[in-house]
Amino acid sequence: MQGTRGSVRLIEVVFPEHTNHYGTLFGGQALQLMSKAAFLGGRSFVRGDVVMARCGEVLFHAPVRLGSTLVLDTHVSRAGRSSLTVCVRGCVQDVATEALACVLEGEFEMVAVDAAGRPRRMARLAEAISEEIV
Amino acid sequence: MQGTRGSVRLIEVVFPEHTNHYGTLFGGQALQLMSKAAFLGGRSFVRGDVVMARCGEVLFHAPVRLGSTLVLDTHVSRAGRSSLTVCVRGCVQDVATEALACVLEGEFEMVAVDAAGRPRRMARLAEAISEEIV
Amino acid sequence: MQGTRGSVRLIEVVFPEHTNHYGTLFGGQALQLMSKAAFLGGRSFVRGDVVMARCGEVLFHAPVRLGSTLVLDTHVSRAGRSSLTVCVRGCVQDVATEALACVLEGEFEMVAVDAAGRPRRMARLAEAISEEIV
Amino acid sequence: MQGTRGSVRLIEVVFPEHTNHYGTLFGGQALQLMSKAAFLGGRSFVRGDVVMARCGEVLFHAPVRLGSTLVLDTHVSRAGRSSLTVCVRGCVQDVATEALACVLEGEFEMVAVDAAGRPRRMARLAEAISEEIV
Amino acid sequence: MQGTRGSVRLIEVVFPEHTNHYGTLFGGQALQLMSKAAFLGGRSFVRGDVVMARCGEVLFHAPVRLGSTLVLDTHVSRAGRSSLTVCVRGCVQDVATEALACVLEGEFEMVAVDAAGRPRRMARLAEAISEEIV
Amino acid sequence: MQGTRGSVRLIEVVFPEHTNHYGTLFGGQALQLMSKAAFLGGRSFVRGDVVMARCGEVLFHAPVRLGSTLVLDTHVSRAGRSSLTVCVRGCVQDVATEALACVLEGEFEMVAVDAAGRPRRMARLAEAISEEIV
Repeated sequence: MQGTRGSVRLIEVVFPEHTNHYGTLFGGQALQLMSKAAFLGGRSFVRGDVVMARCGEVLFHAPVRLGSTLVLDTHVSRAGRSSLTVCVRGCVQDVATEALACVLEGEFEMVAVDAAGRPRRMARLAEAISEEIV
Repeated sequence: MQGTRGSVRLIEVVFPEHTNHYGTLFGGQALQLMSKAAFLGGRSFVRGDVVMARCGEVLFHAPVRLGSTLVLDTHVSRAGRSSLTVCVRGCVQDVATEALACVLEGEFEMVAVDAAGRPRRMARLAEAISEEIV
Repeated sequence: MQGTRGSVRLIEVVFPEHTNHYGTLFGGQALQLMSKAAFLGGRSFVRGDVVMARCGEVLFHAPVRLGSTLVLDTHVSRAGRSSLTVCVRGCVQDVATEALACVLEGEFEMVAVDAAGRPRRMARLAEAISEEIV
Repeated sequence: MQGTRGSVRLIEVVFPEHTNHYGTLFGGQALQLMSKAAFLGGRSFVRGDVVMARCGEVLFHAPVRLGSTLVLDTHVSRAGRSSLTVCVRGCVQDVATEALACVLEGEFEMVAVDAAGRPRRMARLAEAISEEIV
Repeated sequence: MQGTRGSVRLIEVVFPEHTNHYGTLFGGQALQLMSKAAFLGGRSFVRGDVVMARCGEVLFHAPVRLGSTLVLDTHVSRAGRSSLTVCVRGCVQDVATEALACVLEGEFEMVAVDAAGRPRRMARLAEAISEEIV
Repeated sequence: MQGTRGSVRLIEVVFPEHTNHYGTLFGGQALQLMSKAAFLGGRSFVRGDVVMARCGEVLFHAPVRLGSTLVLDTHVSRAGRSSLTVCVRGCVQDVATEALACVLEGEFEMVAVDAAGRPRRMARLAEAISEEIV
């Protein structure tokens, strides 16, 4: 296995297609990138497909400029019978020092689904929790 | 003036470019569309530019299929000195009856900004509230 | 029912992805947005799916700058046995005053289709006309 | 010089991102591709930048399926002092025989502009016409 | 038949959506456009569908600015039993003189496939070669 | 510092917008994703901006289906005075087991540039090599 279950890192460059008319990352694009991270974090935890059921609070601490490297990290903070909570933290990475400055924080509730996209119960999920979270 | 200040309606068709691999609207795309609605609702209320500071809870009640008409309505529920809360409600519109079924609900906190994208105080905002909300 | 049959309003923000190298809305993007409006106006009138058969004259009165709010309104000016004409009018909305300045005007001929995208006769369409246009 | 002034050929593959929910080329995407062709045809004729002022009648003869090769040809049918008319003809190319079946026809009025996007008079355009059209 | 088998020309305008944060064509977008050209060149030679098996060396001679006309030409340099090599040359076209300056060069190995995307043997390909390359 | 200099990992979900008409990842999109990885790997090594100068051989071992998790890993194999070679390896990750199956391999030559996108000499690059590669 690679790293902790449910913890994935996405890296993205902010290109003109992601920006608003201020030349910074459009809030809606930030949410889309965080959703993709939450999807991949959830999929990694559940080892199966997931869909989004709820987006909890998301904070935008600072504008993200065109050309920035944006690093998104996930971890799973809660796992129930059929749903789980994926926390996503987004940081701008300084090009010269690689220091990370947190600009985005949010949590997303994902639901495990079968191949047709219908919710499914997560027998194996409970074990996964006791194994890796507790 | 047209309608209540801060209340705008967006209509969108769900095209393949908006879908995930289940053939339904990707959650991240839903959030992007809601963000655009919140931006336009905030801009309409403030009569100036806004940026997103916080996304409150967003609920996804049901999957939205390819080809659906998605109707997004906004209203402003709170307005402070420099920020305001825009509620967004997204409905799938039945093609035959035009009945609306609510599938998305969320709220977004927007901040008024000047031409350079920096936050600005909202002297005129307070009046707008007393006029139109209270 | 909400408003007149076939009359829908779309609102869009002009983002960098919509612009040409002059920093204004690309003509082809304007036509794409008007087509989406015509599709939704036609769908609303027919209460079923439609495809575009013909784009009549479209006028571009003025360039539309990055960051503009673009408001597109439709109405149905003609309805035949299986086709109908949807007029689309696009305006830039002044952010401070919400005044609308017309920048785009065009008309689109849409044809009613069944679920497989094949044209279908419109028995109910004739009634719709006598009811709401005449 | 390569070919007749103002005559360019664009070739495109219809990918999922261009389609509507019927799995065929969305009418708005067809107009966008034709606009790009008209822009390039006008630029080639004028030997300078152009913007779209008017879209004349465009006919959609048949749906264009996902995966099709779409060939767009332009020619200039009229050139005035500062504007010109670019005709665009779009054909689906049969993969096995390379035979072309016309599916799109339209004309676009383009205006010559300077580097800032402002209309400019076309002294040299008149000569170009007498040379190459008449 | 139109021109030499396997030789196609694509023309594209560099729009903001194709650029990086330097305001020039993003290298990845250049490769995507060249891939589309290689696909169309291969399809034209094989008279059937193809997929990419290998991208040979691609050289980027100079940055391509926003608003440029980019002309991509293909020719087939090698054809085997089931695969072929498509060379792609990309030039920026000067707007005033239509002179071409080569900025991109690469070659792509394509494999003939059936309708399901599976590789297929190319009996007719050998004949095509003796006919048109040798 | 986090991990080896120049080694970054990108994760992507294959959505409909990335696919061709076979329902698999379009080769050109694969190259675009690999280019983004090479850009980020180069930026991480150089601690400054880079542009692509050359794409070496890229192999496509297998089609990548819609909905796949695609993992792209980079490492720097060569660093000169002003340029460096970034190797990119792309794997499909099995959702159930998280096992990686290599589907894409390529190398990209990147050049260090200043803020205006012009090449710059890399005094500090030589030290970086002796420190971390040798």
